[in-house]
Amino acid sequence: MAPILTNSSEVNASERSDNEENGTVCVRNPHLASMPEDVLYHFDLGTKTHNLQAMFGDVKFVCVGGSANRMRGFAEFMYTELGLTGDGSDIRDICAGTDRYSMYKTGPVLSINHGMGVPSISIMLHELIKLLHHAKCRDVTIIRLGTSGGIGLDPGTVVITGTAVNSFLQPQFDQVVLGKVITRSTELDKDLAQELLNCGRAIGSYPTIIGNTMCTHDFYEGQGRLDGALCSFSNEEKLDYLKKAYRAGVRNIEMESTVFAAMCHRCDLKAAIVCVTLLNRFDGDQITSPHEVLLEYQRRPQKIVSMFIKKQLGLLK
Amino acid sequence: MAPILTNSSEVNASERSDNEENGTVCVRNPHLASMPEDVLYHFDLGTKTHNLQAMFGDVKFVCVGGSANRMRGFAEFMYTELGLTGDGSDIRDICAGTDRYSMYKTGPVLSINHGMGVPSISIMLHELIKLLHHAKCRDVTIIRLGTSGGIGLDPGTVVITGTAVNSFLQPQFDQVVLGKVITRSTELDKDLAQELLNCGRAIGSYPTIIGNTMCTHDFYEGQGRLDGALCSFSNEEKLDYLKKAYRAGVRNIEMESTVFAAMCHRCDLKAAIVCVTLLNRFDGDQITSPHEVLLEYQRRPQKIVSMFIKKQLGLLK
Repeated sequence: MAPILTNSSEVNASERSDNEENGTVCVRNPHLASMPEDVLYHFDLGTKTHNLQAMFGDVKFVCVGGSANRMRGFAEFMYTELGLTGDGSDIRDICAGTDRYSMYKTGPVLSINHGMGVPSISIMLHELIKLLHHAKCRDVTIIRLGTSGGIGLDPGTVVITGTAVNSFLQPQFDQVVLGKVITRSTELDKDLAQELLNCGRAIGSYPTIIGNTMCTHDFYEGQGRLDGALCSFSNEEKLDYLKKAYRAGVRNIEMESTVFAAMCHRCDLKAAIVCVTLLNRFDGDQITSPHEVLLEYQRRPQKIVSMFIKKQLGLLK
Repeated sequence: MAPILTNSSEVNASERSDNEENGTVCVRNPHLASMPEDVLYHFDLGTKTHNLQAMFGDVKFVCVGGSANRMRGFAEFMYTELGLTGDGSDIRDICAGTDRYSMYKTGPVLSINHGMGVPSISIMLHELIKLLHHAKCRDVTIIRLGTSGGIGLDPGTVVITGTAVNSFLQPQFDQVVLGKVITRSTELDKDLAQELLNCGRAIGSYPTIIGNTMCTHDFYEGQGRLDGALCSFSNEEKLDYLKKAYRAGVRNIEMESTVFAAMCHRCDLKAAIVCVTLLNRFDGDQITSPHEVLLEYQRRPQKIVSMFIKKQLGLLK
């Protein structure tokens, strides 16, 4: 394995202050400005084929989640919540030309699905950040609404991520670039997490907490599950690992948080992660709750994020 | 980063010979046998809710690829190629209860999509291998039909993977299990690769080669692209990396090959990877070919795999 190069020097002071001044979304790539065209291949969008500023210039909130159906449901929910006219039946998939991702826009809220795992969300984030940059969006907040496995929590608990950590419980994201490992910070916006917690508490009908989130690259062995096609450890070893994570403040496990936090941090996007837990991993590995119960759980992060957005837009007192 | 533990001892002789005798699909997990039920959550299937042996017992070929639309198209194509009765309009998504994956069965051929990246395909493979095991399938061949970036090849060339290598050009897959790195072999079936090459040559209307395939965890920086939201290297550094890969025998880059090879090898599944290249990375980073050209490229691996399957079934002389 190649040595770790800590790239804390990646963000320099001048880059950051430029962005802070005008609130636009940053790309960190000097080559982009000289490209005559930018094809956002996995969105089936591009700078020459679409007027991105006209289509997306008013976006203030980007909400992302794994499942396409869930993110469509969230777009329909936000349509109603924001009191947009019509019945929402005109909500269409902006990325209908490809089946890699689905994207819906309801007023200033963009909803996109990202599939499962770090590579899948990272492709989406590269193209999303370029899209927001090309569209000259300003003061954008991005929130991941996900599902996760809980540690020591009742199923249905909503966890707002304090710190995203990797499988070694380190608050960092390691990325291989040209055969070398670059390490990036997974820092998230603490004020935004607190505001989302306040919304969860105001709703009050289910538990909402701030806790650390562990991001793994595998759902089975990688999360210490005993029920995959491969497993070479005992129940005791599994529980030891989960307890160690719990002692490090980890309250849920999912598969996208570190790269989401790292890329948003690097591009000065205010970011948060709000995941519901579908089970308590101290009690088991399989997700066996009835479909309707799981659907209700998945609506919990959506209600919190909706309240936050409405507050920001002055639609709530 | 944790130390690397090379688990070459994972497969022992008795395990392998048991499987070789009866040809059934192996799981490598002693806990599974004692589970009263196995919920294949991301397929919306389970051992108590479905008769998996009745549904899947006759499967001999499993074909997987990233895009759900493409794998549906492949299922429709195989329906015709195998001369199944009807017009194929009854081909239905067996995983319709979830939007995580789509699955289609046409005679002995199962077609499944796996999304993008190692974590996404690994979830699918865990549940697929368990499904084939529960269904008591025998003598199964599994082939990934994918898209990729080519190195030093004309776009549209089909690459059958000789060896799958990681971003460090090593023929191995590193997996974190309980906070420790386990390294697995990415060995693929050489005879199967040769048979597929023969099919490609027999078709003869586009170039087909055997070459090494590099698997990365990121499409942009991870593959040395200059057109992502983040990029901190020059065109020269990019080309140096691609040339180094070329010298190591790498002819295409994609995002799933190492874990696919590793998991299939570990479970004694005869496996191959057949990817078309959509561009020559020495010439650029963006995929700008017209939609129709890309669609025709994507049908090339399908034609090769169809010929292979028909040969195996005795439908071709």
